[in-house]
Order: sequence, then C-alpha cells, then structure tokens
Amino acid sequence: MSNRVNFIGCDATYEAAETVLIGVPFDGTTSFRPGTRFAPQVIRLESVGIETYSPYQDKDLTRQKIHDMGDVDVVFGNIERTLHAVKDAVQSVLKDGKRPFVIGGEHLISLPVIEAVYAQYPDLCVIQFDAHADLREDYEGEPLSHATVMYQVHRLLGDKRLFQFGIRSGTKHEFTYAKQHTIMERFHADTLEDILAQLGERPIYLTVDLDVLDPSIFPGTGTPEAGGWDFMTLHKALMQFQGKNLVGMDVVELSPHYDMSGVSTAVAVKVIREMLMHGSR
Amino acid sequence: MSNRVNFIGCDATYEAAETVLIGVPFDGTTSFRPGTRFAPQVIRLESVGIETYSPYQDKDLTRQKIHDMGDVDVVFGNIERTLHAVKDAVQSVLKDGKRPFVIGGEHLISLPVIEAVYAQYPDLCVIQFDAHADLREDYEGEPLSHATVMYQVHRLLGDKRLFQFGIRSGTKHEFTYAKQHTIMERFHADTLEDILAQLGERPIYLTVDLDVLDPSIFPGTGTPEAGGWDFMTLHKALMQFQGKNLVGMDVVELSPHYDMSGVSTAVAVKVIREMLMHGSR
Amino acid sequence: MSNRVNFIGCDATYEAAETVLIGVPFDGTTSFRPGTRFAPQVIRLESVGIETYSPYQDKDLTRQKIHDMGDVDVVFGNIERTLHAVKDAVQSVLKDGKRPFVIGGEHLISLPVIEAVYAQYPDLCVIQFDAHADLREDYEGEPLSHATVMYQVHRLLGDKRLFQFGIRSGTKHEFTYAKQHTIMERFHADTLEDILAQLGERPIYLTVDLDVLDPSIFPGTGTPEAGGWDFMTLHKALMQFQGKNLVGMDVVELSPHYDMSGVSTAVAVKVIREMLMHGSR
Amino acid sequence: MSNRVNFIGCDATYEAAETVLIGVPFDGTTSFRPGTRFAPQVIRLESVGIETYSPYQDKDLTRQKIHDMGDVDVVFGNIERTLHAVKDAVQSVLKDGKRPFVIGGEHLISLPVIEAVYAQYPDLCVIQFDAHADLREDYEGEPLSHATVMYQVHRLLGDKRLFQFGIRSGTKHEFTYAKQHTIMERFHADTLEDILAQLGERPIYLTVDLDVLDPSIFPGTGTPEAGGWDFMTLHKALMQFQGKNLVGMDVVELSPHYDMSGVSTAVAVKVIREMLMHGSR
Amino acid sequence: MSNRVNFIGCDATYEAAETVLIGVPFDGTTSFRPGTRFAPQVIRLESVGIETYSPYQDKDLTRQKIHDMGDVDVVFGNIERTLHAVKDAVQSVLKDGKRPFVIGGEHLISLPVIEAVYAQYPDLCVIQFDAHADLREDYEGEPLSHATVMYQVHRLLGDKRLFQFGIRSGTKHEFTYAKQHTIMERFHADTLEDILAQLGERPIYLTVDLDVLDPSIFPGTGTPEAGGWDFMTLHKALMQFQGKNLVGMDVVELSPHYDMSGVSTAVAVKVIREMLMHGSR
Amino acid sequence: MSNRVNFIGCDATYEAAETVLIGVPFDGTTSFRPGTRFAPQVIRLESVGIETYSPYQDKDLTRQKIHDMGDVDVVFGNIERTLHAVKDAVQSVLKDGKRPFVIGGEHLISLPVIEAVYAQYPDLCVIQFDAHADLREDYEGEPLSHATVMYQVHRLLGDKRLFQFGIRSGTKHEFTYAKQHTIMERFHADTLEDILAQLGERPIYLTVDLDVLDPSIFPGTGTPEAGGWDFMTLHKALMQFQGKNLVGMDVVELSPHYDMSGVSTAVAVKVIREMLMHGSR
Repeated sequence: MSNRVNFIGCDATYEAAETVLIGVPFDGTTSFRPGTRFAPQVIRLESVGIETYSPYQDKDLTRQKIHDMGDVDVVFGNIERTLHAVKDAVQSVLKDGKRPFVIGGEHLISLPVIEAVYAQYPDLCVIQFDAHADLREDYEGEPLSHATVMYQVHRLLGDKRLFQFGIRSGTKHEFTYAKQHTIMERFHADTLEDILAQLGERPIYLTVDLDVLDPSIFPGTGTPEAGGWDFMTLHKALMQFQGKNLVGMDVVELSPHYDMSGVSTAVAVKVIREMLMHGSR
Repeated sequence: MSNRVNFIGCDATYEAAETVLIGVPFDGTTSFRPGTRFAPQVIRLESVGIETYSPYQDKDLTRQKIHDMGDVDVVFGNIERTLHAVKDAVQSVLKDGKRPFVIGGEHLISLPVIEAVYAQYPDLCVIQFDAHADLREDYEGEPLSHATVMYQVHRLLGDKRLFQFGIRSGTKHEFTYAKQHTIMERFHADTLEDILAQLGERPIYLTVDLDVLDPSIFPGTGTPEAGGWDFMTLHKALMQFQGKNLVGMDVVELSPHYDMSGVSTAVAVKVIREMLMHGSR
Repeated sequence: MSNRVNFIGCDATYEAAETVLIGVPFDGTTSFRPGTRFAPQVIRLESVGIETYSPYQDKDLTRQKIHDMGDVDVVFGNIERTLHAVKDAVQSVLKDGKRPFVIGGEHLISLPVIEAVYAQYPDLCVIQFDAHADLREDYEGEPLSHATVMYQVHRLLGDKRLFQFGIRSGTKHEFTYAKQHTIMERFHADTLEDILAQLGERPIYLTVDLDVLDPSIFPGTGTPEAGGWDFMTLHKALMQFQGKNLVGMDVVELSPHYDMSGVSTAVAVKVIREMLMHGSR
Repeated sequence: MSNRVNFIGCDATYEAAETVLIGVPFDGTTSFRPGTRFAPQVIRLESVGIETYSPYQDKDLTRQKIHDMGDVDVVFGNIERTLHAVKDAVQSVLKDGKRPFVIGGEHLISLPVIEAVYAQYPDLCVIQFDAHADLREDYEGEPLSHATVMYQVHRLLGDKRLFQFGIRSGTKHEFTYAKQHTIMERFHADTLEDILAQLGERPIYLTVDLDVLDPSIFPGTGTPEAGGWDFMTLHKALMQFQGKNLVGMDVVELSPHYDMSGVSTAVAVKVIREMLMHGSR
Repeated sequence: MSNRVNFIGCDATYEAAETVLIGVPFDGTTSFRPGTRFAPQVIRLESVGIETYSPYQDKDLTRQKIHDMGDVDVVFGNIERTLHAVKDAVQSVLKDGKRPFVIGGEHLISLPVIEAVYAQYPDLCVIQFDAHADLREDYEGEPLSHATVMYQVHRLLGDKRLFQFGIRSGTKHEFTYAKQHTIMERFHADTLEDILAQLGERPIYLTVDLDVLDPSIFPGTGTPEAGGWDFMTLHKALMQFQGKNLVGMDVVELSPHYDMSGVSTAVAVKVIREMLMHGSR
Repeated sequence: MSNRVNFIGCDATYEAAETVLIGVPFDGTTSFRPGTRFAPQVIRLESVGIETYSPYQDKDLTRQKIHDMGDVDVVFGNIERTLHAVKDAVQSVLKDGKRPFVIGGEHLISLPVIEAVYAQYPDLCVIQFDAHADLREDYEGEPLSHATVMYQVHRLLGDKRLFQFGIRSGTKHEFTYAKQHTIMERFHADTLEDILAQLGERPIYLTVDLDVLDPSIFPGTGTPEAGGWDFMTLHKALMQFQGKNLVGMDVVELSPHYDMSGVSTAVAVKVIREMLMHGSR
C-alpha cells in the first residue's frame, strides 16, 4: 500500500543503494499546461512497459542497487529556490557516498546538479549529448535558462572541460564560443571513444538532453530538431561509458504532452534503464 | 523531497484524517497498454490544475481532513488477490474510524470496497451513477467483471438496496432484472432527491462511474455512450449528498490514454474535489 | 468464415429482410486521404461497441428484420456513374418490397437515393436534419456537390415538400431561397411534431446529416459548426418518427479521420441503431 | 499577391473601416512551444471555414466596415514593451475614430487595450465573460499575469465598474475581493440583461475569455474548467449587446496546440464573426 | 454491390487462388477498446492507398493469384474455440492445395496456424521477426498468450527448428532458453541469408511481428520497443525469401487505435504487399 | 504592426532581394478540410522555431537577400486560373532578375512555376526528389493533377531533361515511361553527384516533394510511403547543390492537419532554410 511509484527495478533501500534516482519536475517559467514537469512521474508510470533485463548488457536492473528517492519539491515561480533545493538534494546523496541520477524537467536543472557534483569532484568533466549548444550568455535577458545552461556550466568548470556531442543547432555566436571554450563535435559522436580514453579515470558527469535524438523517434519534446541520432546511435554512444568513472548523470527534456503515441516516453524509459546499468565508482 | 504525489489539498496525516483517499490502479485482464490503471496517478498529477476552493460549496479542500494513502498494490493477472488487497486496505481504514474514498481503475474494484463497507454498516445502501447497468450474471463466462459488478453488489445486499441512476445501456435482461431487484431510474436522476430523503440517516455508499457523463465532456473512457449527463447535471446530483451519511465513495473508469485533450482528466479531478467535500459521518 | 462485417444485429437474410442497409463509401472529389468514404466500414466495425437493445424504445435490433447488404461499388473519379450505381441498388431494394437505409459518405449520395424512392412514392416528402442548408445552385461551378444536394432535391420534388430542421449555416441567398421553396426551421426542430402530424400517412424520407449535432458531441466531420443539437435533442426528434410511414432513410457525413477520440463514431452507431428501429410501412 | 491573411469578410481599407481587428500573438513567459501566440493567425486561416452571413442576426460580415490590421509586433521576453506596443496600436486606432477589436493571445493583453480605451472613454465599464476571476493581486510574485489581469483592470477603473459573468474558479480570496470591488455573477449571466439596461448609453468594453465555454465545446485552452457555458448560452449573452455602445472588444485564450479536432478554433471563429456584427457607436 | 472489402489486388476466386488471405481479428482477453482485432479490416480498407505494383520486385499484385477469404469468426472470451476456428480455416485452405497468409490480431494467433501448417509439412521450420522473444513458459499463469507463443511453437517443433531474428526484449530466462532450444540472432538478421541457404528446399513458415520495426516508423503497436529495424532493413530481410519454399506466413500486432498518423497502417499494408509476392510452392 | 508573417530571416525588401519566396496555398479539388493549402502559412508561423544560422553551411539566413512575397491568390474551384496566377507571379519575379522559391501546396503547382522558369531558361533541366513518379498521363480522367505533374513537365521539356530521384511508388506503366523519357534513379540519389557534374553550368530547377522522406520523420503528408529517405539523406543530397546554377526551387506536399506532433512542419522549415542558402546565379 503506497502512493510511491518507483522506476521499474529500482527498489533498493536508500541505505543499501549505490545509485539514487531523483526526479526534478521543473519547467521553469511555463505556468499553465506545463510540459517537462510531468516527465519524472510519467517515466516512472510507463517504466513497467519494459523488461528489467537488458540483452545489450546482459544485466538486470533488479540486481543493481538503486533507490528511487522521488521528486525534489519544486517551488513554482521561484527558479532560485528550486535550483537550491535540487542542489541540496544532490549534495546530500553525494555526502552519503551514493551516485545521483537525475530525471528532468528542463535542461536548466542540470546546473545545480553539476554544481553539487563539481564540489565533490573538483577535476570533474561534463559530457553533453544534445541537439542544441545551450551556450547563450542570456536568453531574452535571463541568465538562467534552458538555453544558457551549458554557458553556466562552462563558467563553473573553466575551458575545455565541457565535451559537447551531437550539437546541430545554435546561433553563430554559440558555435564560435564553443571553438574557444569547450570541446564540441557537431552532429556526431565519432570522437567520443578517444575522448573517453583520454579522460581515463577522471570523474565524468553525463547529461543527456533527449532532443539529441531525431524527432522521428523522439517527437515528444519542446523543440524538435531534424537530423538527429537514431536510437541505436545514442545507445552505442552510451555503451562506451561502461566501466567509466561516471559520478553523476541526468536525462532531460521529455515533454509528455507532445508524446501522443507514447513512443517518446518508451524511448526515455529504455535510455534510463541502460544508463542506470553503466559505470560506477 | 518525496516521490509521493498527493491529490491537491489532501495533505492531512493519516492519524488526523477523517477521509482517506485510496487509489486502485487495476484494469483487470488488460495486459498491455493498460487503460484505467493509470487513472489514480494521472488524477493526482493533474489535480494541481484546479483550485482547492469550491465556489459551489464555499469550502476549501485544505480545510477538510483528508489523507492520500496512495495506491493499493495490484497483483496483475490475479483478480482475486487484487480484490482481497483492496478489501483489506478499506477494512483497515474503516477500523480506524475513517471514511474510504477510492479512485479506480475499472468498476469491478467497487465490489471489494462495498464488501468492506457493508461489513461495517449492515444497513448500507448503494447509490450508483452509471451509463451501464452492470447487472450481467457473467460476462463471457467470467462472474467477476466490470459488466457484472452491480449484479454482485445486489447479491451481497439483497433486493431494493441498490439505487441506479442515469442508466442508458444494457441488455434487455439487465433491465428486466433491475425491475425485480434494484431501484433503477433510467437516463436521469430526477428521483434522487426523494430517495435520499427516504433513506434519511441510513449509511450510503456512492459509486460514480464517470461514463455516466456524456462523451462530449468525458471522451476518455473505454465505452463511450452518447446521451449522458452534462457536467452540471452530475454536479447537481452530487450536491444533494451534502449532509448525508456518506460512509464511502468511489470514482471509476477514467481511461487516460483515450483522453487526448486532457479534458476528461480535468473533469474527473473536479468531480473528486466536489465529492471529497460532501457528507461525513 | 467471412470478410463481411455486418452492422450489429442486422443479420437477417436479404429474403427475410424488411429493411436493407446499404453503405456508400463516397466522398466525391477528395482524391487523397479521403474522409467520409471510410465511414460505412468503420461504423460497422465499431457497432460491436453498443448493445442491440434500446432502453429508449424497449426494442432489440436482433428482433427487427434487417439485412446488411454491404457497400455500393463506388467508381472513384466518376461522380455520375457512382450516383447511378447508388440509384440502381436502391431501386432494386425497393422493387423487392424492402426499405432502404443508406450510410454515407458525403451528403450528395442522398440525391440518387431520393430519386429512387421518389420514383416509387410520387407523393414523397423529405425531412432533413442538417447544420447547412445545402441549397446552393452550384458550388464553385459544380452542380452536383454536398453543398447543392438539397437544391437538387427541391428541383426534383417541387415546392414545399422538403422540410429542413436545425439549419444554422448558409449564404444569405440560401436562406432566401428556402423561404420561397422549402419549409425551413432554423436552429431547432420545434415544429417537427406538428409537421409530422400534418403529413399523416404520406411517405417520408429522412436524411440525417450528422453535423446537425453540436461539434462538442460530434467533432468527427468535415465542417464543424458550433451551436448544434446535443445528442438527446436529436434523439427526441428521431423518436417522433415512431409509427410514421418512413420509406427510406440515410445518415451521412461522419469523417472518421477527424474522430480521434472515437466518440463521433460511437454517436453515429447509436443514431443508426435507434433509426433502424423506427417506423416501417 | 500577398502574404496577408485577413479574417474572412474583413476586407475594408483602414480608411473606410469603422472597426479595426488587431491580433496580439502574445503568451507571456512561455518561451518554447508557445500556445495562445498562434491563435490570431490560426483564427484568420480557419475563418474561411464559415460563411460570412449570420442567420442569427441576418447580417453579412462583408457589409460591415471592418479592416484587419494584422498583428502587433510582440517583443518576446519583454512583457512591458509588448504591453506598450499593444496600447500604442489601440490608441492610434481610437484616435482615428475607429473601434478596436483585439484577438489574443493570453488574457493579460486585455490590460493595455482597456487602458487605451479607458483613456478615451473615462466613464467606461468593462464586462468580462470568463471561467476564472483573474483577481489575484499577484501570481507567484508577478503582478502582470493572466491570473491578475482583472485585478489590474479594477485598480484602473475603481469599484463596481467591472462586471464579471460565468466565473466558476478562483481562490476564496478572489471571490471575497469580488464581493467588495466588482459586480460578479458566478456561473451564469442571468443578470446581464438588467445590467446592460442600467448601463444604458455608457461605453462598454467586452472581454471574452473563451474558457468561459465548457471544455466539451472548447477543449483548446490552457486551463479547461468543467461546468461552463455551451455555445448557445454564450451566443445568447452576446446577442444582448446588439445596439449597445460597445467601444472595444477582445477574444482571448484559444490555444491551438491543444485543439486537436479543430473544433475550438471553429468555435472561436464563429464567436468573433457574431461579435464583429454587434453594436457600434 | 458487396460488403466485402478485399486487400487491394487480391481478387482471384478461391478456386483459382494459389495464396489465400485470412484475417484473424483476435486480441484475446482485451474486452473493451480492443486493439489488434481491428487490424485486418483497417488493413484492407487502407490498402487502397498503395499501388498494386512493386518497383522493388517488378511484380504486380493483380497478376498473383490471391483470394481474400475474409476473417475467421472469433469467439470472444473463448480462446480455445477461437484458436480451433483458426486452425480449421487454415487446414481447409491447405487441404485445397493453397497457401495460407494470415493477418492478425495478436501474436498468439500464429500458434494454430503453425499447428495446421506443421501437420501438412512435418519438416517445417519457422522463422520469426520480432522485438520480443515470446518464449515465456506462462504469462501470469496463462500458458496461451502473446508472450508465450514461441515457447509453444518450440514445444511443437522441437529444438533448433525455430529461427528468431531482431529480438531485443525478454527476460534473462527467455534468452537463456533460446540458447538451448532455438536459433536466435539478437537485434539483427545478418545470419538470415546463410540460414536460408542451409534450409534449401525445406518448407518455411514466416511470422512477422511488426513490432520488430522501430517505433519511429511503427508506433501503432501495444508494446513499442526502441532500437528496432527501419523499414528498408525489414524489406531487405523479406527480399531474401524470393524463390524460397514459403508454405505459410503471417503478419501480426498492428494496433490501429495507437496509429494516429496512419503511418503504421501504411507500413503494414506495404509489408503485406511485398510478402504476398514472395515465394510459392 | 502588420499581419504579414515572413519566413524567419527573409526580411529583405523586394528591391534588394536576390531570391523571392512565394507561397501557393493550393490543394486543388479538395473542397472541405483542405490539407496542403495551409502549409505556406503554417510553415511561416513555425519557422520561428529554428535558428537562422546553419551549422551545416556556416551561413545565416539573415545575411542572404531574401524577400517573402506572401501567397499567390488562389481561385478555389478553378485550377486553370490558379495555375495562371502562379505562372504570372513567377514570371514577374524572373523578369525582375530574381530567383523564385515556391512553397506549396500540392505538387501540381510546380507545373506553372516550371513553365515560367523554362520560358526564361530554354536549356533548363528539372531535378525532382519524390516518393512518387507522378508520370501518369491522367488521373481518373484529369490531365492536371498531383499524379500527372511530371508527365506534363516532361512534355514541356522533352526527353532526358527531367531527373527523378528517390522514386519508390508508381504504376508499372509509369516506371516503363520513365525508362524511355526521363532519367530516373529508383529509391536513392546515388547518381546525383555525377549528374550534377555533367550538367555543369546548365540552369537547374529543383522540386522537392517532401514525401520523398520516410514517414517516420515526415508523417504529415497525404500519401505516406514507407521506405523513404531519412532527414540526413535528403540533407546530403541538397548539399550537392551548393554552387550550382539553381534558377528556381519548390517544396511541396506538407499537409499540416496530419502533422499532429508538429515534427513534419519542423522538418519542412529546416529543409527550406537549408535550400534557401544554396546556389544562386
């Protein structure tokens, strides 16, 4: 008897868990018919539609030690307090020696998560899979936005510690900025293997904006951008993280109201299952 | 920090609560792309879209003492064990002197709820708002089904203690059966006021199959049946329960996958808010 | 073993039948993603969703003698030949002493049906339920169109033998034309009872353009027009035909591709069930 | 040859026009997948689906002198500048002795329109048809919002000059505020006729939030609220403005992305046609 | 004049036919809003949307000798009797020296078809294209289910006579079972060509669960599973059956209610056209 | 203040422009719920969803000299006059030394555009990307149709000056005709590079029927045909036109009413952005 709905197979106690799943139902300034805020709960509900066993990795989620902690309490209309609450939740998980896995919500929620992880791991690198560069200095005057989040991450980490893959949209200025300050591979992730080899044992944070996928397989997002990856391209990129020192992860930007066929949610659920089985300290 | 999602304004502790909200995410034999099983969680999620204040009753949900207990653990593929779990949950709530309010799921889930309430209140009457008589003796050989539930309730309570309103679909046999064994008003609820007056202080259980509403306002259900009530007709009927001895209630048969516009869910949420404010022992 | 799908409960043989159901999957000049052409088969398929028993009339379809003859062979791209084929099919049914009941398709298909029925019953009157007057002399130069069909019917029958109800859209010219040549009640059907009384035993043809219904209950049509009838208003109007000399009927303009929730089809099916139980010579 | 799309029948030149139609494609802080911002253009495009003739009023839009001026240039991310641009556009129209008719966009856009009209007509009264009171003093800290717009209008006009009809949702505080400061009829518009009679020749501004309609006929809005008016109830209320001194009007809150069947847009178009034919100085 | 709708180009008489198309509108225990049961008729209706000519094979369906026999009479609520009826129909077709081509319905319907074909061809091999292994021994206690069908087929044929391609979902147990008892290629069909060469002239039955396709091109199914084949991958696999001894085929698991765009049905129709042109005794 | 909506970044004056964008909202004989006629305006509205900068070409639309001229006035019900109006508009643009870029509308609209361009460039070649051959001599008796347009173009230009790529559907006759009279590569565009090299400096007209794309990425069209190109395949083909003598272009067959997720429109917008940056005299 409960009104908890856990992601399938994530039934470890907090104490026993190595990885802790946290939802952040936040979509910022959107005050009616919000979109990505529904993603964490919808993802949990629909996760029963897949098996806990992955034939790709020959692993089973039920054998991993994962606790689903539920959602951060979002303060609607107050971005700062919400970002604080996210940061607090992640810090607490890290302090207990566990690995955070965050489900958004919009991409801005990666910022407080990365801040908390960076505080714990000062030599952190961030790897981003995304259609959009997210490197604007402000978005219509607003410095904290889904379109500025990676600019903020860069300012936090400094040059050449943010690795961007799959980027196929942005202003000319963003692409110029990337050349100077980040490592960006446009469109593809062909260099990912080499980069991961170079990073060796350094702690890695992985942020997956699901719109890196092609809209054919992932229509359920706010800003569909043609020319993206098919599911297996994303899957193969994710498989390269096996055995890496992945100290935190997030998956963002599913917008269930635009996912009429339910396929986008099914994709998000499978991506999360596979990622949950990857790397651990 | 939680992965609980309560129905809006239902934040009392269990101890303090007078009414306890229980979800039953059960849709029986439907094994893939289930329908009504998603209703309790979707209803909780979307309940943030309405105000806690009712201008119809000049009451506020936050002032009521309601605890949202979450969902009963459903055993898929095992109807009997699921019905048992529902009955147990409701019995426990009743034993603690609280009133159960159940959100389905399919209509069959009313049966164990009514069994538990009847055990507590032997002079119980049941009032049903529904498009369908649900008086079949079996449905394709199966005695426990959404189409037989009120036949089972009648067998439990005996003659003339089941009051059916709004019924506009059934076999000829069901309507004949009703003439002998239940009190049925076809299509409308014009006699409701008189019947409630006659029942006086007797304990009443109210079961609302949302398909009593016209499909124009409630398309999100498995068996849409034209010629139903508009929202205000249902609302007026519900208003007559103010001050009555309502000892249990349920709301069933929202099927979110068929609610593309989201309107059916918004209707279900408002119906539940209004009902939660009605009657108490 | 068959690839016939009959409308539910219409399983009489042709020989035994008093009423014969005929589909006309025609939507004229629409050459790709056709709309109303799919209606007859979709209506048959979805008819299993309702009971054969009507609690409104206390009759059961299975007791009526109705044969479902299937669909007329439509010649795409050739309006004239298609209209001929419809006329032939109806004439043959009439010659065998049976009553035709036609499911469209677009409204133009009423023309050959009425021509055939009129040949058999020279004192025929036609009653039309519709949102649109359909009294244009031509539609963008084309004299045979869903927008001109009742102009053609008037030319066939002469003045004051076409009775139009529920009309709420048309050009000023059409409304002026109606004043001179037809009997039109705008918006409502309040005068229907009196008119039916006056017609007495005269043979009546009833054509129901389902867009007479309000788009709230019938969104699945090509030209939704707000301010229409709710289902019970249509149902009450239809009930007045009990015992009348109804010698032919049609139901047109369901467009299944615009009926995402399936409610419009469920409504069409119920309207047809009720009409099939009405009047017979 | 043009890329202008006028609302059907609104083809007068600016010089010849008595009424000027202005679109305000603004939905405030929603930065991706915006909703009501698409309404003005979608309304123009779909307006070809209705006749220019109204059988309710026996008038034809083509005989009215209406100019469709197009849309105000919205400055995304800058509410103040956008509201200024709206106010400027309306002031200019008023200065030229013409009547503004504004199509939103979200309800906040009524504020600058009313400010401009009030400057011209100091004894202005405002009549609001709406599901929501919109009387909050702030919405999550923000004083300019769709949820505060009528609070702002009241502060502009002073007590008892704002008349609210159909209101069925709000906080308890909003309803209390209304008792002191506005004239509110909850749920219905039964007192409209008397109030209009009392207002006599005073200049009236009419703002129609389309969510006053029931979600059955108007699902395409951000915050569907059951228990609203059907189309004919709204239409009858609107008909009472015939011959009144209507000096400005707006129609807001169609959200085309949630209007899958297209019915909500068809309703909005018909409402606008009827309103355009009403009253003039 | 008929209410038969044949798959396009399948107009041979039964007597003249070499291949006989049979629909099985069965979706087991789903009692309301059934899904795959509508597939055979929807597939026939929408088949008019493609050409009868295949530029891939330079063949035309109208030149093949194919008879569309319609649908097996399904006994709802009685799985055993339905499976018997399917087996009977297929046996009768085989006895007449013709080849059965079955359109589902859910995957369970392959079982009686394969039983009948196996009785005729004792050295039969079965080739399965599917996302799911379908090798469970029971599904929630039920031995006859879409999730157990290939386990049943294996028990019928014995070891190493079932060849499974494209499998990307199942329990760990199912994959272990496959290693011992079937020939399974996970994810792909790279070994198909070699296997077909080895099978030589042996009789082959091909069962295509359309969910082997990626949900991007085939969203209209009950259990979408990302990472599937695109259309051309399936098409190339099918092309390898040209000239093979294909003695029976089926295509299953289209669920039209989840195919909002109509694309999944268009895909199913094209797959069937291509398969109908393949192999013959 | 305007009711013009330009395609994003196309804000040059007519005088300054080198390329002129023209919409043709024509879908021929479809008289209700028209489809492709809405494409030009929907494409303009949704174009704000992409960046003006292309990372593929490192160019920005705002630096190109493009004027959006709006839509040709379509005469509904009169194909000939509409085609004339299109031809006139294009001729006028060509006479002013500018390049026409046309957005449909159905494919037939390419005919008058090509006629006008051919008159200016007698050695014109036409390159077609399409799923369908469009080489029928007539379509159900009609010589001017979306299914005959390339037959008409061939008759205009003569043999071997029409180059067709991606064709995967047609009658056997159309493919035979193509062998004699056009240069057709079925399914792919592998020979495009060589052909473009051979054409050298000859003037080229490019017509893109968006249904050349696979329905997975482009469901929003009237005749979805599986087995098409993914977005990057089309994009790579388009990239080969960089630096070529492209004297005219069109993009046709988006049908917004079948684009529920909005993805097809997003794709069309991105295709147009990339094409607008290609080639110029």
